[in-house]
Amino acid sequence: MSDFQVNILGCGSATPSPLRNTSAQVIDYRRRLMMIDCGEGAQSAMRRMGLQFSRLTHIFISHMHGDHCLGLPGLLSTLALHGKEGTITVVLPESGLRIMKEITDYFCREPQLEIIFQPVGGNGGIVADLPSMSVEAFPLYHRIETYGYIFREKPKQRHLKGDMVNFYNVPVAMRPLLKEGADFVTEDGRTIENRLLTTDPDPSRSYAYCSDTMFDERVAKAVNGVDLLYHEATYGHSLVSNAHERGHSTALEAARIASLANAGNLMIGHYSKRYTDVTPLVREAQTVFPKVIAAHDGLKIDLEKL
Amino acid sequence: MSDFQVNILGCGSATPSPLRNTSAQVIDYRRRLMMIDCGEGAQSAMRRMGLQFSRLTHIFISHMHGDHCLGLPGLLSTLALHGKEGTITVVLPESGLRIMKEITDYFCREPQLEIIFQPVGGNGGIVADLPSMSVEAFPLYHRIETYGYIFREKPKQRHLKGDMVNFYNVPVAMRPLLKEGADFVTEDGRTIENRLLTTDPDPSRSYAYCSDTMFDERVAKAVNGVDLLYHEATYGHSLVSNAHERGHSTALEAARIASLANAGNLMIGHYSKRYTDVTPLVREAQTVFPKVIAAHDGLKIDLEKL
Repeated sequence: MSDFQVNILGCGSATPSPLRNTSAQVIDYRRRLMMIDCGEGAQSAMRRMGLQFSRLTHIFISHMHGDHCLGLPGLLSTLALHGKEGTITVVLPESGLRIMKEITDYFCREPQLEIIFQPVGGNGGIVADLPSMSVEAFPLYHRIETYGYIFREKPKQRHLKGDMVNFYNVPVAMRPLLKEGADFVTEDGRTIENRLLTTDPDPSRSYAYCSDTMFDERVAKAVNGVDLLYHEATYGHSLVSNAHERGHSTALEAARIASLANAGNLMIGHYSKRYTDVTPLVREAQTVFPKVIAAHDGLKIDLEKL
Repeated sequence: MSDFQVNILGCGSATPSPLRNTSAQVIDYRRRLMMIDCGEGAQSAMRRMGLQFSRLTHIFISHMHGDHCLGLPGLLSTLALHGKEGTITVVLPESGLRIMKEITDYFCREPQLEIIFQPVGGNGGIVADLPSMSVEAFPLYHRIETYGYIFREKPKQRHLKGDMVNFYNVPVAMRPLLKEGADFVTEDGRTIENRLLTTDPDPSRSYAYCSDTMFDERVAKAVNGVDLLYHEATYGHSLVSNAHERGHSTALEAARIASLANAGNLMIGHYSKRYTDVTPLVREAQTVFPKVIAAHDGLKIDLEKL
């Protein structure tokens, strides 16, 4: 298994249906799990997908509509009852802080789990700075205060060329500096350029989550260059007026954002219940942007294999 | 299909598992649906069991632990989004009123559905008086304020004996009174006793829900004579000390209550996760009370066929 995976727990809109749960995803990054949105049933979907509660450290909530956050009280309650210790950080829009705190104060009283609420406001910004990854919030354009989230691996270390490192007798203590890109100065004062001693690091991957939102070019700017963009596509473009009225996007609009952002791949989801088969939405998006993945509940995507 | 059914949406304790949802049941009575408890996922289980949201009129909450009520905000939200009109009545312990109102004020804002909260306090009493059924709340003995609920069909009408009614020339306008038990007075002043003109009505059935509760003889008194008693059996009796410590009952204790109450049948549920197979709990209960049904998610019980 690779380092960076996205798990789709639910990709339906509005209310759960037999075909699709409401919104929830889990990023699996180097044994750490981070949830994005938490519709009702997210905790059951985690179990079905074999994602262990003990590894969950963060939950990022996009907005305070029930289909994106009503699974949170039950999940936190379960974490506490399962004896999870330490802290869990819940990042959520400022406007949802008061009610979510009240709910968890009431329902999640197990003392060994500390729930840290971290509100996001304004234009967002970095909301989690982890050892090898940063998470950034940015505004989306929905009916209420809503944020998207980008998960970016930090730059990785360069690879040492074993033969060259031996040839120049680089001391072991110096090698970590070479991996960071430093040149090497030999005992007799010669500078050996880093590029002779190392090869490029593995690429750093990035994933952006945009749901719920209307089509807005500022979103493309915010997610510029991500390897995988999840963008809601609640409707097909024949229903573009429904989309605009309700603060949602069409599959075509999702593809336009992916194209404007020079994204590597687009994943669509948050489908209206009217679409049992989403092939027409995928085809519509592909008229603008070729690399389209259709989200479905239970899907695991390996960012390193895209 | 008969008039009075109990549907088990979830019969697990504490947290949902792949085997069992948390507590929720639906009484299906003459096309009206009434829910008892509403753990997370209850709305999805309703769909799986083919129970239509539009028929739901009442929700009775036993107590404010998350595994008995955290599905409520999502369910009410779904009812509203599905365009359910009119009112839905939520009966719940007084102590839960404030938080539940806050949650629904925040998440369920569709104006066409009116949510009526009806608090129960003290010793309970009649909480719903419907055309052919009454619902009564009574105290249970758990760690927090908790109520059980009894659903009792009201006495039914007597059946007319067609030949006798014709023989005595009972006018059509009089016949409803005979069904209620009135005697008939002929034109020449003779009184014909009702029992000559009618046969006994169909029996009125009753169902009692007791979860969560410790063993307490007052519960047996409250549910005396019910046709079907649902009583929690979180543990087997070898773990009786766990049961007492956490305000729960063992299968043996559930059977004792059924026996003391002269119940027609006992259904056990609210099993601890340690029991994947509940046969030992059923056998334990049967040492005291013979007619034991093991609840499982998806079970439908027809009260008229017990």
